Amino acid sequence: MGTFRIIPDEAFGAKPIIRIRDIDAVVHNYKLFKQKADLTSTICGVVLKADVHGLQMKDVAPALYNVGVKYYFIEELCEGIELRKILPYEDAKIFAMAGLLHGEEQYFKSFNIIPCINSIEQLKRWNKFCDENGKASVVIHLDTHMNRLGLLEDQVEILSKNFMELTSKVNVEFYMSHFYDIKGTDHTQCFKQYDVLNQYLNVLPSFPVSFACTDSVILLDNETFNFGIIRPGIGLVGGAPDAKSPISVDAKHTFEIYAKISQIKNVKKGETIGYGGAYTVKRDSKLALVHIGYKDGYLRLLSETDENPKGAYMYMDGYKLPLMGKVSLGITTVDVTDVPESTFQKNKYVEVVGPNVDIKFLADIGGCYEILAALGRPNVKVTDYTLREYFNLYGN
Amino acid sequence: MGTFRIIPDEAFGAKPIIRIRDIDAVVHNYKLFKQKADLTSTICGVVLKADVHGLQMKDVAPALYNVGVKYYFIEELCEGIELRKILPYEDAKIFAMAGLLHGEEQYFKSFNIIPCINSIEQLKRWNKFCDENGKASVVIHLDTHMNRLGLLEDQVEILSKNFMELTSKVNVEFYMSHFYDIKGTDHTQCFKQYDVLNQYLNVLPSFPVSFACTDSVILLDNETFNFGIIRPGIGLVGGAPDAKSPISVDAKHTFEIYAKISQIKNVKKGETIGYGGAYTVKRDSKLALVHIGYKDGYLRLLSETDENPKGAYMYMDGYKLPLMGKVSLGITTVDVTDVPESTFQKNKYVEVVGPNVDIKFLADIGGCYEILAALGRPNVKVTDYTLREYFNLYGN
Repeated sequence: MGTFRIIPDEAFGAKPIIRIRDIDAVVHNYKLFKQKADLTSTICGVVLKADVHGLQMKDVAPALYNVGVKYYFIEELCEGIELRKILPYEDAKIFAMAGLLHGEEQYFKSFNIIPCINSIEQLKRWNKFCDENGKASVVIHLDTHMNRLGLLEDQVEILSKNFMELTSKVNVEFYMSHFYDIKGTDHTQCFKQYDVLNQYLNVLPSFPVSFACTDSVILLDNETFNFGIIRPGIGLVGGAPDAKSPISVDAKHTFEIYAKISQIKNVKKGETIGYGGAYTVKRDSKLALVHIGYKDGYLRLLSETDENPKGAYMYMDGYKLPLMGKVSLGITTVDVTDVPESTFQKNKYVEVVGPNVDIKFLADIGGCYEILAALGRPNVKVTDYTLREYFNLYGN
Repeated sequence: MGTFRIIPDEAFGAKPIIRIRDIDAVVHNYKLFKQKADLTSTICGVVLKADVHGLQMKDVAPALYNVGVKYYFIEELCEGIELRKILPYEDAKIFAMAGLLHGEEQYFKSFNIIPCINSIEQLKRWNKFCDENGKASVVIHLDTHMNRLGLLEDQVEILSKNFMELTSKVNVEFYMSHFYDIKGTDHTQCFKQYDVLNQYLNVLPSFPVSFACTDSVILLDNETFNFGIIRPGIGLVGGAPDAKSPISVDAKHTFEIYAKISQIKNVKKGETIGYGGAYTVKRDSKLALVHIGYKDGYLRLLSETDENPKGAYMYMDGYKLPLMGKVSLGITTVDVTDVPESTFQKNKYVEVVGPNVDIKFLADIGGCYEILAALGRPNVKVTDYTLREYFNLYGN
């Protein structure tokens, strides 16, 4: 177990939750990928979508720019506009993976964002716009049968036959594609997608390639997939496909979340807890109410019910606190039966995510990385700090 | 089917999602509850927690104040502070249901917010603070075996025996409690809680009572539960426990969400769609990529997979669009095989929630009201309008 952070009342202020973001740890994690990329002379970009899963572009992007990152991937145009305001530098390239949606051409141009076009229709539209408004860059997204973003065989064929015409007014920066099944160590599907990619590349002019490091783990297993550009995303945050497959043993946690408790109460064996009466108390127990819930991104699927026990827990000063009952809108109940009275007296809050509650473990229970995205969204209940800010204010 | 709203490009601007909030409909729904409350001479308060599930306090609260609402319930102190800034009026009472967390006394006092205390410990703390800083109000939350917020038997006994001393410096406004199991028409558990409440009331001094209208439906079934104050919440939004139990046939929808599509693509029978290859295509199909995902509150549990088909859908101009595959961070794929080419040409977006996609239906699939809370959170991808604003700008 790690240290339990001692947090003074004033750090919470009028809010029940605090969040501490370790931007230096993000940079550290980036460097782990960079080292792997360097081995194959691959460019190491970064994916900052979903406001870097709540780590916030405004702090993360400048820190990464300072260590030399030049390729920034976000999902939507609107994220790109935010990022461009943070990095108004010519050598910071911003790629919008969502592609060029209807009516967005002028925004892409004005904010100098590069669309990762996903269809011939988008390519035509961008090429036409560039014809009228000046040449600009493009990335071409090839769909290697994820059947989501990008060009499938039928469109690759059109592209292949009309490449010069379709790209007459744009600069193709590279091709990209994306894995759809990276869990644990079975990479069968990745190799199938690899074969599809090579079929596409065989009929297209040569440009660099960026194959995703979805879940950021595969490139560590196999240099086959590095190609020209890698783009770690969740790995920057310290996430991984599952708790047993960290991106690296050297990867650092990047954030901590603490939430206040209000009351501690005694409940008798056989009573049920919370909504739906879905959890039955197994012994005379003490429970604590923690003021974080699904509205705050602590997803309802973490709920502990008789029917579907998940095993999620929080932590207080040496003690794991298993969940009891359903997570509600703003409150989660945890079992504190084994925590001594003196520990309550000292601590009025619990660790929700941090050195003692691994986000990867929660992500395992909570379904992929939805919980990260949810916890990372703006929230009126949260007082937010970078670790440096927090350290300067409260010194521990 | 309702009308499909015609939305010009400029309404989206640089963002892929728009949200239209009908504040007049919230007021309309409030009045439905008010009528029911009037029948039993009951005060009708309102619950505005979670920023009124995204309908936003800044617009909803003044509209409700204008029609005479005096009792406002929010969850956390920090929400109360926001609300107090919106309604700086002495006759607008604000009650924080989360109670009085450690260190929050001064904030409650400064912003004139009334804590719904949940334990003897909180009551002692508030009474002591009021002794030193001047008398203030309090609500006492009784836990009728939901085993979440409030006083259980052991604490009710302490309160009963020491009522005068424990409340010497505070004004008790009323007692409150909360149902934990309101689904469909089986209200067995509610009547059990009703009995527990009456046991508590038997040993306590007389004050008004507010028993929750969780899911806002029970009070419509049974006037037994109205007591002194009702507090509709989700019902203001037009929600209900399940699609078949609307709060009233006269209740109105309060918001609509539209999201842009990027590309439409052909996929062959037997192919899989998206992450995990979890959905297999049953016939040669056309799919569309819609730019809303779980990061935006369109929860991952709405995903349509072979293993767990849920039946969620979106809508475009006369056509239901069933989901295909997993909802991803920013994108959801829908089946548009049966939609004619001409319809695509005309419409570059779909209805995600609105007159043709009932939020109650999504809430059924999506697990209680988590989806409402999730869709309602602040989101960089959303251009937001009240219906009046939208109408003034775009006239339809």
